[in-house]
Amino acid sequence: MKANYQHILEELYHVIKVIPDGGQVAPYIPELAEIDPNKFGVHLATTMGEQFGYGDHEEKFSIQSIGKVLSLTLAFQQKGEALWERVGVEPSGNPFNSLWQLEYEKGKPRNPLINSGAIVICDILCTLFDDPLHDLLAFIRKISGNAEINYNDEVAASEKKLGFRNAALINLMKSCHNIDNEIDEVMDLYYHMCSVEMSCTELANTFLVYANHGKIVSTGESVITSSMAKRINAIMQTCGFYDEAGEYTFKVGLPGKSGIGGGIVAIHPGNYAVAVWSPKLNKKGNSVKGMQLLEILTTKTGLSIF
Amino acid sequence: MKANYQHILEELYHVIKVIPDGGQVAPYIPELAEIDPNKFGVHLATTMGEQFGYGDHEEKFSIQSIGKVLSLTLAFQQKGEALWERVGVEPSGNPFNSLWQLEYEKGKPRNPLINSGAIVICDILCTLFDDPLHDLLAFIRKISGNAEINYNDEVAASEKKLGFRNAALINLMKSCHNIDNEIDEVMDLYYHMCSVEMSCTELANTFLVYANHGKIVSTGESVITSSMAKRINAIMQTCGFYDEAGEYTFKVGLPGKSGIGGGIVAIHPGNYAVAVWSPKLNKKGNSVKGMQLLEILTTKTGLSIF
Amino acid sequence: MKANYQHILEELYHVIKVIPDGGQVAPYIPELAEIDPNKFGVHLATTMGEQFGYGDHEEKFSIQSIGKVLSLTLAFQQKGEALWERVGVEPSGNPFNSLWQLEYEKGKPRNPLINSGAIVICDILCTLFDDPLHDLLAFIRKISGNAEINYNDEVAASEKKLGFRNAALINLMKSCHNIDNEIDEVMDLYYHMCSVEMSCTELANTFLVYANHGKIVSTGESVITSSMAKRINAIMQTCGFYDEAGEYTFKVGLPGKSGIGGGIVAIHPGNYAVAVWSPKLNKKGNSVKGMQLLEILTTKTGLSIF
Amino acid sequence: MKANYQHILEELYHVIKVIPDGGQVAPYIPELAEIDPNKFGVHLATTMGEQFGYGDHEEKFSIQSIGKVLSLTLAFQQKGEALWERVGVEPSGNPFNSLWQLEYEKGKPRNPLINSGAIVICDILCTLFDDPLHDLLAFIRKISGNAEINYNDEVAASEKKLGFRNAALINLMKSCHNIDNEIDEVMDLYYHMCSVEMSCTELANTFLVYANHGKIVSTGESVITSSMAKRINAIMQTCGFYDEAGEYTFKVGLPGKSGIGGGIVAIHPGNYAVAVWSPKLNKKGNSVKGMQLLEILTTKTGLSIF
Repeated sequence: MKANYQHILEELYHVIKVIPDGGQVAPYIPELAEIDPNKFGVHLATTMGEQFGYGDHEEKFSIQSIGKVLSLTLAFQQKGEALWERVGVEPSGNPFNSLWQLEYEKGKPRNPLINSGAIVICDILCTLFDDPLHDLLAFIRKISGNAEINYNDEVAASEKKLGFRNAALINLMKSCHNIDNEIDEVMDLYYHMCSVEMSCTELANTFLVYANHGKIVSTGESVITSSMAKRINAIMQTCGFYDEAGEYTFKVGLPGKSGIGGGIVAIHPGNYAVAVWSPKLNKKGNSVKGMQLLEILTTKTGLSIF
Repeated sequence: MKANYQHILEELYHVIKVIPDGGQVAPYIPELAEIDPNKFGVHLATTMGEQFGYGDHEEKFSIQSIGKVLSLTLAFQQKGEALWERVGVEPSGNPFNSLWQLEYEKGKPRNPLINSGAIVICDILCTLFDDPLHDLLAFIRKISGNAEINYNDEVAASEKKLGFRNAALINLMKSCHNIDNEIDEVMDLYYHMCSVEMSCTELANTFLVYANHGKIVSTGESVITSSMAKRINAIMQTCGFYDEAGEYTFKVGLPGKSGIGGGIVAIHPGNYAVAVWSPKLNKKGNSVKGMQLLEILTTKTGLSIF
Repeated sequence: MKANYQHILEELYHVIKVIPDGGQVAPYIPELAEIDPNKFGVHLATTMGEQFGYGDHEEKFSIQSIGKVLSLTLAFQQKGEALWERVGVEPSGNPFNSLWQLEYEKGKPRNPLINSGAIVICDILCTLFDDPLHDLLAFIRKISGNAEINYNDEVAASEKKLGFRNAALINLMKSCHNIDNEIDEVMDLYYHMCSVEMSCTELANTFLVYANHGKIVSTGESVITSSMAKRINAIMQTCGFYDEAGEYTFKVGLPGKSGIGGGIVAIHPGNYAVAVWSPKLNKKGNSVKGMQLLEILTTKTGLSIF
Repeated sequence: MKANYQHILEELYHVIKVIPDGGQVAPYIPELAEIDPNKFGVHLATTMGEQFGYGDHEEKFSIQSIGKVLSLTLAFQQKGEALWERVGVEPSGNPFNSLWQLEYEKGKPRNPLINSGAIVICDILCTLFDDPLHDLLAFIRKISGNAEINYNDEVAASEKKLGFRNAALINLMKSCHNIDNEIDEVMDLYYHMCSVEMSCTELANTFLVYANHGKIVSTGESVITSSMAKRINAIMQTCGFYDEAGEYTFKVGLPGKSGIGGGIVAIHPGNYAVAVWSPKLNKKGNSVKGMQLLEILTTKTGLSIF
């Protein structure tokens, strides 16, 4: 099996590498806009401990929205089902930063993977921990099995400075009494969470916990219950790709999450986690080559869930 | 394996049968409102041809919105990918009969399993066939392997008479030039499609085609391609349960579709199709006992996809 | 004073006649689309009984939405303040045929001069009268002092056939229980009301009742109370020009109502009613030359209310 | 005439004083919540220089949203018609602080008297002046003919601290590129503008400029053109009372503006300006007794414009 995956990844890499794509690197902040658009890496880690990677899979990038899954996991671990009083579990059917639905639904975000929902999660972490920046990072380091994972303070500061729409979201929620802490503190945590840097290798190994029913593969420690892992996988499946969730579900057929840094991570429950990185994004904000690679990978391996 | 499924279904049936549920039978039309609310049946059919059933699994009921999957399949078979120019594949994030999003998106429905989308599918069938009522029924009979399946004209007429919100939907789409045929003809097909009557046994065996990569199990005939079956399964996963798709995806973790007649059908790709029927609905319009049974079934068998 | 108004109207007519306008004749139905776009007439009638007219002021045209004021007046006369339980008095801030707000506000239209509100008024008239078509026409003939005023059955039938968006509106309201009668009967009255034909002369003399505190000038008969006339004038001021009410209020500064047949009528309370007709419409659906003439007229006479 | 107005105001004062009202003092900020709810004053000033007042008409209160008309006037004076590229002139049909419509219309507010529109006006003033706080106050002092008019820094600070929804509005507009200056600077001006304190006497005399075609009555100086005054009056008529504009237009029939401090000011073009103050508000945010007094006043004097 090992040889197979390595062979498939390399083959796909070369096929997709040369397909011209019309995507664009995220223009929001200087730090991300300067990334070499031709970076391309992929890494697959199995629940058996096998590792397969190719291309720029060891190079760190900004995981951005992928971090929302990690902060959600910590909050869910701490609060259990009570979490869903503050945020829903349904797809939004709208762009990731829509105010509209949020106003109509009186400040309760549709799900924890759109911006408003991830901000509520950060607010919850601010209430739970004295030093949430420290505790979230410690948690991420623990499930990744890697004490070197870190925030990028510069990226966090830069995004915070320009994040007017996110500021609109949190102020609206605050006016609806769904934010308990100071706006500045919550947004600080939010943007740090988005600024976490990982390589494909690190990302795949971190997300292996969702493929392994909530247990860290390397240590066997249970971070969340099997049911919680199932819940998070279901949320990734229906809400992980903004308003391209349906298209992604069809094409890839695995729970996953994308970030505007060009990363995508996907999970095959019981089997593996796979991370891809290519900075050029389609109009919905998802990595073009990342989507292509995952689509062909699941078709080739027959491992789509549909 | 055979004994196992039969045993599990019977056990679940008796456990769930006695749980008090606060649901209500669909009040929309007299014909459905008069159903005995205590009816309860379940049937599971595997791609190997095995059959397991219990309770009222041989009794026919109105499949209602479950029929949307069947009309979609016929239209998809005929039109291929061109279908998606008229209707999307994304979850709506709104109730099944919302006008709002439809107006904002200029008459193109979010997906083919909400009412507006299913109406567009019926319009497409009206254009494709001289006698769409006949051809849709013939198609359903073929994939079910059952020449006795039929419409209930009385239910169709009754629903059509009271379907003011659906009339609003089709008129809005007509004004946006996304309906080609006469409104009356299209709605006639729509309400007949919803009025189809099947037992759990018939429903499970009909939907086996989606678990079997588009091939009819009994004859081996390929009705749609494997990719088309995957696409329909993905749509069922993300859009099959109105605005409870996220909750259902978490709890059941299988592509499926519900109807306000109290039926639910779910597919485990490669393995089986299972149909449940219990007329009392939760506030989102999905069968309470049906959801419970599928949730525990997937947990017991470990066959959730997450 | 008499000579003055006649002189002003003639002068304005010739000035505006030659201004090129980029407007378009309403394309909705063949009967209206065939009108000579160069028709242009104006008539002003005072509460003292004076009459001033110029251009095609004796030629009949389809008053369309202007008729909404007349049906509102009859319903208001019959129901009094109870009318406002079924329809509001606030500007909509949206195009005249928006479904959106209507769905959000659960089927209660914003005001009686947008399509949905005028349809509710017709529903009320259908409940009040055995033969509402006859009684509405009798009422219009009475306040116009002209027994020759009539519907145009052909225009009514043609508009009804193509009125999909209005059909969406009434079906939505019916589903919200804000329509009591058969949809077909209500829409029949609605489209007949819109099909009434008047010349500028007839229109100005009909609307004189709103400038005369609810009394017919020629007979002295009180049709509605002074307070009711004030209410209707206020509604015309804030809601009479779709989503161009603010612009119109600034430019013209008189209560008024426009129709897609190219007519506009405006009232100077206590003084006069003035009707203009020119079929070419701006993007908001209001007559281009009609707006221009009224704007300069109020500036010249200093009779704007602001 | 003089004796008349004084007599009418006193009579109305005593009649309305004893009517029980179910209104509530604005609860948003401590400074306003502590106002004696029984305060009640009225002042009417004519373009001839006559002054009539009664009750607490000499006591200062927070003019709040009434200030939006003053900042609009300064911006309009400076920018002319170019102003309308940044903000519309149509009624919103929505509550004063809705995000919804603003998002749909891509950050361009409906009119300058809703919060979002008034914030854009403040942004324009921040661009126009080096010290906008100083220049706006100087302008207000000039048209009021009163060098003692001032901001209340404490109220401004308190409102700014709790103004989450306004913060959402400005951040949304900033993300849509309709705010040029620093958010903090703009909101500082906005909340200071709202914190201006005037008595009924001062307010009526300040707003006399709109009844006097743009000229200051005491000095004869023209602050804005006659056409600009007409435009501002028209905007007050259609947009001055949030989503109660239609009701107010009917009842009072004069251009006006209300504030949540309990003040209302209304203008009879060519004749007078009248200011009322009573802190208890109806559900739409308008002073209950203020509305009553103006309604009866216009009925008594026959000076409604309808």
